[in-house]
Amino acid sequence: MNPKILNTLSYGMYAIGVEGEHYPSASIVNTVFQITSSPMTIAVSVNHNNYTNERIKATGKFTVSVLSENTSGFVIGALGFNSGRDSDKLKNINYKVLRENVPVLRENICCWFLCKVVNTVETMTHTVFFAEIKAGSDDYSGTPMTYDYYHKVIKGRAPKNAPTYQPDTGDDRSPQLKYVCPICRFVYKDSEQTVPFEELPDDWKCPICGVPKSEFKIEG
Amino acid sequence: MNPKILNTLSYGMYAIGVEGEHYPSASIVNTVFQITSSPMTIAVSVNHNNYTNERIKATGKFTVSVLSENTSGFVIGALGFNSGRDSDKLKNINYKVLRENVPVLRENICCWFLCKVVNTVETMTHTVFFAEIKAGSDDYSGTPMTYDYYHKVIKGRAPKNAPTYQPDTGDDRSPQLKYVCPICRFVYKDSEQTVPFEELPDDWKCPICGVPKSEFKIEG
Repeated sequence: MNPKILNTLSYGMYAIGVEGEHYPSASIVNTVFQITSSPMTIAVSVNHNNYTNERIKATGKFTVSVLSENTSGFVIGALGFNSGRDSDKLKNINYKVLRENVPVLRENICCWFLCKVVNTVETMTHTVFFAEIKAGSDDYSGTPMTYDYYHKVIKGRAPKNAPTYQPDTGDDRSPQLKYVCPICRFVYKDSEQTVPFEELPDDWKCPICGVPKSEFKIEG
Repeated sequence: MNPKILNTLSYGMYAIGVEGEHYPSASIVNTVFQITSSPMTIAVSVNHNNYTNERIKATGKFTVSVLSENTSGFVIGALGFNSGRDSDKLKNINYKVLRENVPVLRENICCWFLCKVVNTVETMTHTVFFAEIKAGSDDYSGTPMTYDYYHKVIKGRAPKNAPTYQPDTGDDRSPQLKYVCPICRFVYKDSEQTVPFEELPDDWKCPICGVPKSEFKIEG
């Protein structure tokens, strides 16, 4: 069996908002799914190491903002590849805080809803939170971003804590230099591009999260 | 909050194969998602009333066939809107039975994998099975069918036992006659079509599951 067959499972892209200790915080997940329609209950899977996991356990609540195809790679880079434990991840993001002290995104989302945890299940690496929906948008708009769209169109990849993370399998015939974004881990390989990295203009930025070219790291 | 905002969650389309008491059996679900990558673990949500639920509990195993965009509406109609409790649902479907006595589909799927249950969680209406993947295809092909594609392109709807089922909200200004497929609940409304139902040719069939026009029921 080839583990890559699991890439055929379909997911959406969501920002999970939580009440942080110092700032409101949010992270990106792809595994939100409805369990029952009455009472409206969803499940979401969050890595044990994520600050979001810790804060959901501490507060028993979170929000889901459903990302649309118009959500910029910057938002995904800012929320998906940093920890809210020691930084204000939402600093440059347009959001509002609900009266329950949990943030939801304001721009380019299809809708949002507020959830209260009713059960948790631990697995080796992730907690699956079962939660009832307590409030949400009056309407929805836009086209929901799928995980497939994120990979194919935005050319994003999964961070190490995602359930769907797959290590680089080294398919290359010979080792190649890679230029890696320190924030979102976007990889620029000369062997796959027309313009070599060094020849990109100085004001070139990471297409996912906007980090300047000068901050990219070379990996062998 | 409008409950329809939950339509923005993204899902795939899957056939769950089980060892039946009399025949191999299978049903359609849209909620399969990966939980951890090592050991490879997935979760799937199945309604309490479904024969599939009963058979997974009795045998501790099931398969997932990932449907592709080429999977016909007939397959979804045959597996998704009947019970395997008293009929051979796979009678007219191309499938094979693994040595573990569980069936997988053979045609127009992206891939398949075999799962062993490691944990179960009960909710009001559904059981969520956590299962480790024990074997699967050597490769995958085709484009996975999303639930959105099923709704928009195949014009399918959710059966009553699906977590994503939503009752008809009666948006019509005045009551209209509806012609409803007794198998897959596909609805033909004269008010939405160019040709009234009664004027369709006698050999017209349900576009989802192939049931003949003569078996459609009129609902007020």
